[in-house]
Amino acid sequence: MLNFDYCAPTRILFGKGEENIVGTRIQPLAKKILLHYGGGSIKKTGLYDRIITSLKSSGIEIVELGGVLPNPRLSLVHTGISLCRQEQVDLILAVGGGSVIDSAKAIAMGVYYDGDIWDVFCSSKPVARALPVATVLTIPASGSESSGDTVITNEKKQLKFCYNSPHIQPVLSIMNPELFFTLPDNQVSYGAADMMSHVFERYFTNTIHTDLTDGLCEATLRTLMRNAPRALANKKDYVAWSELGFAGTIAHNGLLGMGRSQDWACHRMEHELSAIYDVAHGAGLAVLTPAWMRYVYKENVPMFVQFAINVMGVDGSYRDPAAITEEGITRLCAFFARLELPSTLKELGIDEEHLEEMAKKSTGASDGNERPLGGLKKLYWQDVLAIYRMIAE
Amino acid sequence: MLNFDYCAPTRILFGKGEENIVGTRIQPLAKKILLHYGGGSIKKTGLYDRIITSLKSSGIEIVELGGVLPNPRLSLVHTGISLCRQEQVDLILAVGGGSVIDSAKAIAMGVYYDGDIWDVFCSSKPVARALPVATVLTIPASGSESSGDTVITNEKKQLKFCYNSPHIQPVLSIMNPELFFTLPDNQVSYGAADMMSHVFERYFTNTIHTDLTDGLCEATLRTLMRNAPRALANKKDYVAWSELGFAGTIAHNGLLGMGRSQDWACHRMEHELSAIYDVAHGAGLAVLTPAWMRYVYKENVPMFVQFAINVMGVDGSYRDPAAITEEGITRLCAFFARLELPSTLKELGIDEEHLEEMAKKSTGASDGNERPLGGLKKLYWQDVLAIYRMIAE
Repeated sequence: MLNFDYCAPTRILFGKGEENIVGTRIQPLAKKILLHYGGGSIKKTGLYDRIITSLKSSGIEIVELGGVLPNPRLSLVHTGISLCRQEQVDLILAVGGGSVIDSAKAIAMGVYYDGDIWDVFCSSKPVARALPVATVLTIPASGSESSGDTVITNEKKQLKFCYNSPHIQPVLSIMNPELFFTLPDNQVSYGAADMMSHVFERYFTNTIHTDLTDGLCEATLRTLMRNAPRALANKKDYVAWSELGFAGTIAHNGLLGMGRSQDWACHRMEHELSAIYDVAHGAGLAVLTPAWMRYVYKENVPMFVQFAINVMGVDGSYRDPAAITEEGITRLCAFFARLELPSTLKELGIDEEHLEEMAKKSTGASDGNERPLGGLKKLYWQDVLAIYRMIAE
Repeated sequence: MLNFDYCAPTRILFGKGEENIVGTRIQPLAKKILLHYGGGSIKKTGLYDRIITSLKSSGIEIVELGGVLPNPRLSLVHTGISLCRQEQVDLILAVGGGSVIDSAKAIAMGVYYDGDIWDVFCSSKPVARALPVATVLTIPASGSESSGDTVITNEKKQLKFCYNSPHIQPVLSIMNPELFFTLPDNQVSYGAADMMSHVFERYFTNTIHTDLTDGLCEATLRTLMRNAPRALANKKDYVAWSELGFAGTIAHNGLLGMGRSQDWACHRMEHELSAIYDVAHGAGLAVLTPAWMRYVYKENVPMFVQFAINVMGVDGSYRDPAAITEEGITRLCAFFARLELPSTLKELGIDEEHLEEMAKKSTGASDGNERPLGGLKKLYWQDVLAIYRMIAE
């Protein structure tokens, strides 16, 4: 086990009706807030009205900024920063999924940052402070409700960069599984693939002796795989959504990666797809992950055998590690197919035109400053290109 | 899954050498501290000197109070409260195991409490504030390094009461597994039994649909059971101690009980033994837990079958739930025996004299105000007495 520094300070308020007392929860923390949200689905479902009512009854002043798109854009972040400064808000309340929360986090940092906040995404330099962020989660997927991560797309430069800081871990997150009932099928599946990927990126490691976190990762993966098909089959399955919501938070609040070297190659390869083609993050991950597994597994066969047995239920009493691994990956593909997730770049609307460009951007080779991706196996741009080509169609 | 409110704010600083920079960690939080510790083992090992050196080099003023005993006493808590008030310390640094940390927490609350702090243990009324507590852990067992719990013994009244408050969750805890190398054999075993019990008390529940936390509990139990014998066989096994230390924290920081009704009957029954006979907490739990399981399992056979299969490795493809359960409990007894833990009250030096008195005190029946113990099955004093008698000798 490696040395680590762990803290999960986000207060998770879980259960039915929690969003109706959001005002009571926010009131000790702020007098004036930015209410940040997406394309208006929260108005259709009535969630918007319930939140406004609760905030007003707690005497909280509200400034609004809607319009966050999937793969949230830098331009709206700039708008939000100006608005928060002008209105002198104390806290940002993000009501939505990962895109809204990530946008809120970028705004929260930007308010105190002297310069263009995009610079910190490029430099990864630490920020000194940020406005507090609270969330009401409507899509279990990104884990952003309890992470210190934000991913922003610079739409002009076609770049999608992530940034991490303890200053942007939400102070509190409200999670009522009933709010997930109205998600369309594809969002359910994309969310499941994203949450599973957050575990995979931590689970597949070359660090030895990671007994506890191996077990916690495997339990979280099994929970996600048991419950995603249930939620897809019955959108009002409160039980299944409870497990998915809680598991999605545990998948990405940092716990599962403590003491382990981590990977994150699939996320980095996916960000290149999204930056140019604006594909759904979870869909991109579902396409990439099995190919990545087949490309890298020989680096650490025992790790992939353990995955096949403990997560995918492959019979381990068969004296052929490669066959056990392949059976595990095949079962993962079958699971993704059951969720009607894509398995090729072609299905994502991506042809061969930009593959080399994306591969070179993913490692920085395009800027002549290559830093290979991944932890389990270092991936150079030629490796990334080979993986992209494995799944071209 | 039940509604829940979860927050684990304690920063865990894990790894080799962490205690040598404790001053750097404390310095942003306090100028003057109470250094609280036990019977002097930290002086023999050199830990005391390293901590003093680090604190002084960070310019931190130190007030000392040693002498905490196992089953920490109210009288020393009173001394600590007076000392902290008189010296106007900003923070309490507990260097030791659960007893030292629990004593520090009681002092931390008492400093701001107008009246005898024992009253809050009796009334369970919330406290408004407490001094911040930091810890350097030397025994993985109690989980007190990241919990909001404290257990104090009123030695005059022979009462051992626990109290919980978010205000006494440590702000930071340093965990270097090397500090566990010098523990005597019995402390290793008691610690393992205590940590396992912290999971059991959350795991055995009548709440249905607790998929994620079931899996997290089972993974934590398996980790504890794999690594405790390793640490016992080789006291310098850093890997085994790392797993035990981290698992002990996860076992008791609240996560594993979220969304589930909990039990805690074994802890309550054990506190009665410790209050009169001053037995080691883990030893008492090892004696009580299997008997409790046999007494209650019929309330929720599927839960105990799941335990037998997923934790104890019993073959589930046998069509007799009672036999599967009994095999699981028998294996747990065998595991405790392997750790040379006692299995009877007689081995703990407890005869039949006070059994009825302890049973009545455990539920409050002795005060004419009985509140049954437990969540999975409600236990009245007659039930507690029946369990005590099952393990008399």
